[in-house]
Amino acid sequence: MPTITAWGNTEAGAALSRHMLTIAEPGPDELLLEVLYCGLCHSDLGHIDEARSATDPPVVAGHEIVGRVVALGQGVDPARLGQLCGLGFIAGTCRHCRYCLSGRQTLCANFESTILGRPGGFASHVKAHQDWVLPLPDGLDPAAAGPLLCAGVTVFEPLLGGAISPTAHVAVIGVGGLGHLALQLARAWGCEVTGITTSANKRDEILSLGAHQVQLLGELDQQQGAYDLIINTSNHALDWDAVVGALAPDGCLHQLGLCPTPIPLRVFPFVKGNLSFRASLTSTPANSIKLLEFCARHQIQPLVEVLPMDQINTAIARLRRGDVRYRFVLQGPA
Amino acid sequence: MPTITAWGNTEAGAALSRHMLTIAEPGPDELLLEVLYCGLCHSDLGHIDEARSATDPPVVAGHEIVGRVVALGQGVDPARLGQLCGLGFIAGTCRHCRYCLSGRQTLCANFESTILGRPGGFASHVKAHQDWVLPLPDGLDPAAAGPLLCAGVTVFEPLLGGAISPTAHVAVIGVGGLGHLALQLARAWGCEVTGITTSANKRDEILSLGAHQVQLLGELDQQQGAYDLIINTSNHALDWDAVVGALAPDGCLHQLGLCPTPIPLRVFPFVKGNLSFRASLTSTPANSIKLLEFCARHQIQPLVEVLPMDQINTAIARLRRGDVRYRFVLQGPA
Repeated sequence: MPTITAWGNTEAGAALSRHMLTIAEPGPDELLLEVLYCGLCHSDLGHIDEARSATDPPVVAGHEIVGRVVALGQGVDPARLGQLCGLGFIAGTCRHCRYCLSGRQTLCANFESTILGRPGGFASHVKAHQDWVLPLPDGLDPAAAGPLLCAGVTVFEPLLGGAISPTAHVAVIGVGGLGHLALQLARAWGCEVTGITTSANKRDEILSLGAHQVQLLGELDQQQGAYDLIINTSNHALDWDAVVGALAPDGCLHQLGLCPTPIPLRVFPFVKGNLSFRASLTSTPANSIKLLEFCARHQIQPLVEVLPMDQINTAIARLRRGDVRYRFVLQGPA
Repeated sequence: MPTITAWGNTEAGAALSRHMLTIAEPGPDELLLEVLYCGLCHSDLGHIDEARSATDPPVVAGHEIVGRVVALGQGVDPARLGQLCGLGFIAGTCRHCRYCLSGRQTLCANFESTILGRPGGFASHVKAHQDWVLPLPDGLDPAAAGPLLCAGVTVFEPLLGGAISPTAHVAVIGVGGLGHLALQLARAWGCEVTGITTSANKRDEILSLGAHQVQLLGELDQQQGAYDLIINTSNHALDWDAVVGALAPDGCLHQLGLCPTPIPLRVFPFVKGNLSFRASLTSTPANSIKLLEFCARHQIQPLVEVLPMDQINTAIARLRRGDVRYRFVLQGPA
């Protein structure tokens, strides 16, 4: 059984330390990746904060992984050995339910997460099902590609899954880890793009990310009927009437931020405008492959700050106070 | 200028009385219908209750109209004279905006309602743009067809506009004027159909309307993940967590009832289940024509109680207390 090095914690919210862990050999259809880079996502913080006790195995977060295939389970094409690949939040699904069989694997009730109940990507190695370990196309920088596998596929879903036309006017609320990728993707998708922010000082950067214009969130009520699609990456409670009011007829509010309070939607504007509210979480392998190809073709990549893996506690502390533009990537070896 | 007879009120909520009104001749592209039948919709009550003062022209409601074409404006095919037609809530749109030009006329900002600022269908005659006066296909009973033009097209929209598959499991909340048509339509659409009601004593009637099963609204929390589409015709505040919880992955809550309080939607179930919330109001001419054809083919019609037009105040009083299964139709002449 392989021994791996992993950065984890056993007490909720505690600093991470280096652990030696033993994991099982790759099973049928599984791969073992040597981790080269792993992005740090907001949802990793929640995971770190949920560690239970010193007697439990350490929590090892990290699910925006770029690595190299170093071992194969039964049934995996030997040609994959040595392949440079990416892995996101989901590491496997049942493959037998109606959702898996119809290509909607994120709806599988028995999905396996890369970081839940198993060590994730802040480690020397990580294991996953072959279908979720996606070859990186040429042209993507391995040091920056990791966040595409989580943040990237998440913000691609409103465009791809929502079948948005390149003629649409698209607004992105929140320009952080998710939003700064959504702006680039919507621009390359051919849309008119507006970045909506609370920070007037982000204006030039938002324009450089592809937005045609910048809108202050507090002045959104002046943009009645402006947008066919609003991608909301913020997890804060907003002035929802202003957000909905900014939708054009037939428009869609696509919620990605995990706002903890219910969103109160008034019925009449939805009825009158034929509006819709959608939400989604991560993406399927087939759509993730499309995202990687699309990013390679359009030279889209996250803006990252790369730190060596042993500075992971620094990265976590800075992410907690929002001090990153826009994503930390931890570089192996762990 | 034609003189018409119309049932209207000038003080908010007052009893209707017979008035003689003068209206302009049909303009270009307009038709004049002699009203044979007109359904009484809940939204007519709101209109009647909004009359302002005795010095204003009387409010004349009624927008579920079956009539015969008796006069034509310029530009209308003379062959339409004498045609048996239906007319719903919208009597015309601008025809020049992007929504009209793309067949999404209900989104036209300058639509003309059959009953707003002009006398509606509780009258001897009513005028409308030719595109909204739809020939009734053979096989529809003119006495019962009126409500198809409002209630019918409204409940058809979640199926047609939502591109619902006949393999879907569809639930209808509320079995009244809208819901009793939604059940019939969803059954003919090929779906598995559940009628959701607060009235256990409606069980047999709900099954006779096409539902495969009946579900009590108060026990909806026992139906986790059951329905691909929930058509909510109720305008009451519900246990929204139970309603959303009853959606299957990829499911949609389509709201038709004009609930006056905002609907609080929790984000996590939407994100996890890839759920959507939609809403709509009435339908376009093209989709209304499809509805009429579909109803004729499947022998779908509203259950109506026909009263002579001069008993309209009785119908209004009984509708206010919910004493109708499921729609009143007032029969002309006015």
